[in-house]
Amino acid sequence: KKFEVACMPGDGIGVEVVPEAMRVLEAVAKIHGGLMFSFDTFYWNCDYYVQHGRMMPEDGLDRLSQYDSVFLGAIGDVTKVPDHISVWESILTIRREFEQALNIRPAKIIQGVHSPLVNPKDFDLIVVRENSEGEYSTVGGKMYRGKDEIAVQNNFFSRRAMSEAMHYAFDLAKKRKGHVTSATKSNGIYHSMPFWDEVFQEVSTDYPHIQTDSQHIDALVAFFVTDPSRFDVIVASNLFGDILTDLGAGIMGSVGIAPAANINLNGKYPSMFEPVHGSAPDIAGKGIANPIGQIWTAKLMLDHFGETELGDLVMDAIEKVIQSGRTTKDIGGTLSTKEVTVEILSELNNY
Amino acid sequence: KKFEVACMPGDGIGVEVVPEAMRVLEAVAKIHGGLMFSFDTFYWNCDYYVQHGRMMPEDGLDRLSQYDSVFLGAIGDVTKVPDHISVWESILTIRREFEQALNIRPAKIIQGVHSPLVNPKDFDLIVVRENSEGEYSTVGGKMYRGKDEIAVQNNFFSRRAMSEAMHYAFDLAKKRKGHVTSATKSNGIYHSMPFWDEVFQEVSTDYPHIQTDSQHIDALVAFFVTDPSRFDVIVASNLFGDILTDLGAGIMGSVGIAPAANINLNGKYPSMFEPVHGSAPDIAGKGIANPIGQIWTAKLMLDHFGETELGDLVMDAIEKVIQSGRTTKDIGGTLSTKEVTVEILSELNNY
Ligand SMILES: CC(C)[C@H](C(=O)O)[C@@H](O)C(=O)O
Ligand SMILES: CC(C)[C@H](C(=O)O)[C@@H](O)C(=O)O
Repeated sequence: KKFEVACMPGDGIGVEVVPEAMRVLEAVAKIHGGLMFSFDTFYWNCDYYVQHGRMMPEDGLDRLSQYDSVFLGAIGDVTKVPDHISVWESILTIRREFEQALNIRPAKIIQGVHSPLVNPKDFDLIVVRENSEGEYSTVGGKMYRGKDEIAVQNNFFSRRAMSEAMHYAFDLAKKRKGHVTSATKSNGIYHSMPFWDEVFQEVSTDYPHIQTDSQHIDALVAFFVTDPSRFDVIVASNLFGDILTDLGAGIMGSVGIAPAANINLNGKYPSMFEPVHGSAPDIAGKGIANPIGQIWTAKLMLDHFGETELGDLVMDAIEKVIQSGRTTKDIGGTLSTKEVTVEILSELNNY
Repeated sequence: KKFEVACMPGDGIGVEVVPEAMRVLEAVAKIHGGLMFSFDTFYWNCDYYVQHGRMMPEDGLDRLSQYDSVFLGAIGDVTKVPDHISVWESILTIRREFEQALNIRPAKIIQGVHSPLVNPKDFDLIVVRENSEGEYSTVGGKMYRGKDEIAVQNNFFSRRAMSEAMHYAFDLAKKRKGHVTSATKSNGIYHSMPFWDEVFQEVSTDYPHIQTDSQHIDALVAFFVTDPSRFDVIVASNLFGDILTDLGAGIMGSVGIAPAANINLNGKYPSMFEPVHGSAPDIAGKGIANPIGQIWTAKLMLDHFGETELGDLVMDAIEKVIQSGRTTKDIGGTLSTKEVTVEILSELNNY
């Protein structure tokens, strides 16, 4: 079996952590024996923009579409390109054009990572984020100049995209604790969110054995700090999913370890795997970035390829390395990016 | 001096905590000697809706507009009225019609309230929330029926409203630690948020001695759990302010104590004071609701009336009662709503 992966390290620490995760993938391919990865690396990032005036070549999407998946580090360097341009011309375009309808992001207590919460219990949740529309929209614009200037931002919510995300969430809950929470704000946001509630209500009738709960986003973020163990699967709009998953990474103990998968469900285009963290310009180039977010993301890619046993091996190795304190500074250790990878590789070699 | 206050207890625990806060206001008026409150109570809530098909009488706003301020408990009872109706026809209409441009919400460590964070340090922040537009908009609607149905939600951001909130935030920071953080999401939300950044940038040039920082909302919520003490004043859009303030209440240790002030800056209409918590149907009617959110809110009203010394007395009494554990269950005590008030009143009598 051969998987062809387009790697886009991107900017900042992306360039440092993507090669580490590739080494881990090579290692599990060797363990498996009958599996092969072919990696092509594309340096389409903010430097590319500075040279070419765009984040990717004109045929960039076409080229990426040939691969089984896209493996992305992080995009963004405001000293070169404003974020809303760098990100819209790369990550957000890929999510949309490749019909990556969902963004799946787990957050759970890992022994050895110190949660900032006094009593996180054993929380273990997954956020299923609608990934193509909602609050993330390029429709809108500005009017007037000077003191009367206004911006209008249009948000689009389709029953199709919402119910796709919700069905996925319910199916996932079946294999887990059987509970789905809907993130809403139907008291304040007048048109989109009551519609979201309505569709959630409808979809839930297809799953009589799944328990449901609907919470306004403001209450939900408070529950993330007071009692995250009450959650199993959470389904959320594009923006609310974004907010909840960074908060989820925060209560896990580090944004540096949180993974994400942008899933294409119709098989027409590749899915994309990228960690929750950004390009972290403050620590870029120092060799101290935590590679675990990217490596856990590689595990999600293995799962997506159906190689769940290999995915479990990687997760096991990650947990062992963390438990024994062989980590980067952000989660309490003293190792460099590369040293953490070496430890993970040596755990894998024990199998 | 006489202040005329329109009280709207609203639903659920609102009905229980508003009278308690009124007793505290009466007590400080007595301490002051030359001050008087005149309270008129309006039972415009979800029961009123059931009887009259609307949340307030037709001349409701006119009547409220005669007062020096509106003192609100909480609105909402989904068993009677969907939230987006009850809230839009009351709180959100009042905020808008009375030009309450800002919503001011402090969050800080109070000795004796157990923060769910391991290391909250002595965080002490204020969120200045734009309170009239942004993501909270009734403009939009739905199209098609059945599987193709879509909802469009329009958000409006005016330079006027943004810069008003930002100026207020900068002026506030001058009297505090001299730092303002802007909550943005200009990487994902294409039109409104880059405009928000632009206006923030401009307003900041008027305050060369104030330090500034701009953070995407996803990173910001993570910082609220990993290092809230880095913040002083945060300026945020309507929705982001809503999210951050519930999270702020969460890391303080209880939504039950968090206060809020909806400020009218032009003097044409009354301001409105309401705690962050909602009507809490799960504990309503049991006499166990924490009255401190409403009482701290009364302190903000005293400050607004220029009676900051009285406001400080109330805050002192709140802190003493909490420090000595004379509290309701939600923050670790055993007292009832009324008993907590009695303790606060007895602290006030010591002055
Ligand atoms: C009731 C609701 C619409 C309201 C809001 O979102 O503004 C509440 O959460 C608040 O924060 O005052
Ligand atoms: C870079 C940004 C646009 C992106 C998002 O908001 O989706 C990021 O925060 C994420 O969560 O993947």
